[in-house]
Parts: sequence; C-alpha cells; structure tokens
Amino acid sequence: MEFRDLLEPKYKEIISGYLKNQNEQNLYQGQKLSRKLIEHNISPEEIISLHKSIMVDSEATQEKLIDSFDVLLEVMMGYGLAYREHQSLRTEQM
Amino acid sequence: MEFRDLLEPKYKEIISGYLKNQNEQNLYQGQKLSRKLIEHNISPEEIISLHKSIMVDSEATQEKLIDSFDVLLEVMMGYGLAYREHQSLRTEQM
Repeated sequence: MEFRDLLEPKYKEIISGYLKNQNEQNLYQGQKLSRKLIEHNISPEEIISLHKSIMVDSEATQEKLIDSFDVLLEVMMGYGLAYREHQSLRTEQM
Repeated sequence: MEFRDLLEPKYKEIISGYLKNQNEQNLYQGQKLSRKLIEHNISPEEIISLHKSIMVDSEATQEKLIDSFDVLLEVMMGYGLAYREHQSLRTEQM
C-alpha cells in the first residue's frame, strides 16, 4: 500500500483522537506523522486540503473546527523545522 | 513598522475579503502575501496560529471556518513551492 493511501486514515485518526480527548499524546502523533510527510514529499498544501476535507466530511462543529487547528499547527511545525534546516544548510554551502 | 506588525491586519483583511466575496482576487492576495512571509522568515506554523486566532476573534460560523481553509491553502502553496525549490537546489549541489 502506498503511503498516500495510508495518510488519510492516519491523519483522520489523529484528528478525531485529539478532538475527543485533547491530550498531548495525539499532538505527539501529529508531530511524528509530520516527519513522515516530509520524507514522502507530501506538500504542506496537501495537508491543508486533506484537513479541510476531513473536517467537511465529519460535519464538525464550530468548536471542533477551532480545536482542530492545534493538530494542523503541530504538523506544520515539522514543515517549518525542515524548511529552516534547508535554509541553514544552504547558507553553509554558500 | 515591522513586517510582523503589519502581517496580522493584512492577513485578516484577506480572510474577511474572501469570506465576503469568495473571489479569486482575495486568493491572489493570499498568494502574494505568502511570498512576503517567506522572505521575512515567518514560519508556516505561525500562520496556522494567526489563522486560528483570527477565526476565534471573529466568532466565525462553521461554514466560514470551512471556507477560510481556502485562504490557508493558498498561503501554504507558497511554502510548498519554496520548500521544493530548496530541495531541488540541494539535490543539484550534491
């Protein structure tokens, strides 16, 4: 099975887990997923698009929608970090 | 005035414009802002955090929250592009 096929159920699981319990454990899972996304060259906009479609499908309330940004934040931190690493590597090479 | 101080009102203006009219023009403004964010080393997670806080403050409805992801998508496309450019530069240098 391709990573992209596994991504949607995995991300869905992390979001729904977080929206139920709002514990750090789910956010940590988001962090771990983030590393894999970058390894598999999944772009950050693909995650926004996936996040939107999961929230539409789940008919999330206003409150849940707001809370769901915490998961997105965690995932985007991975991209931010990767991006800063690339930048500093580039600066070193110049 | 610092870019960071201008960022919040600018991003807020783009979101509220898009939520009112949902036209391409506002999305294009999001694209342009995206380039500036990257130039000023604003991390993608800072944008998620700002987006959340704007949506909380505006007491957006479920529908508006869902629509607002389109603006976030547009902005993140800029990060995705910058990230892919860095990656290909790195591959060339290896």
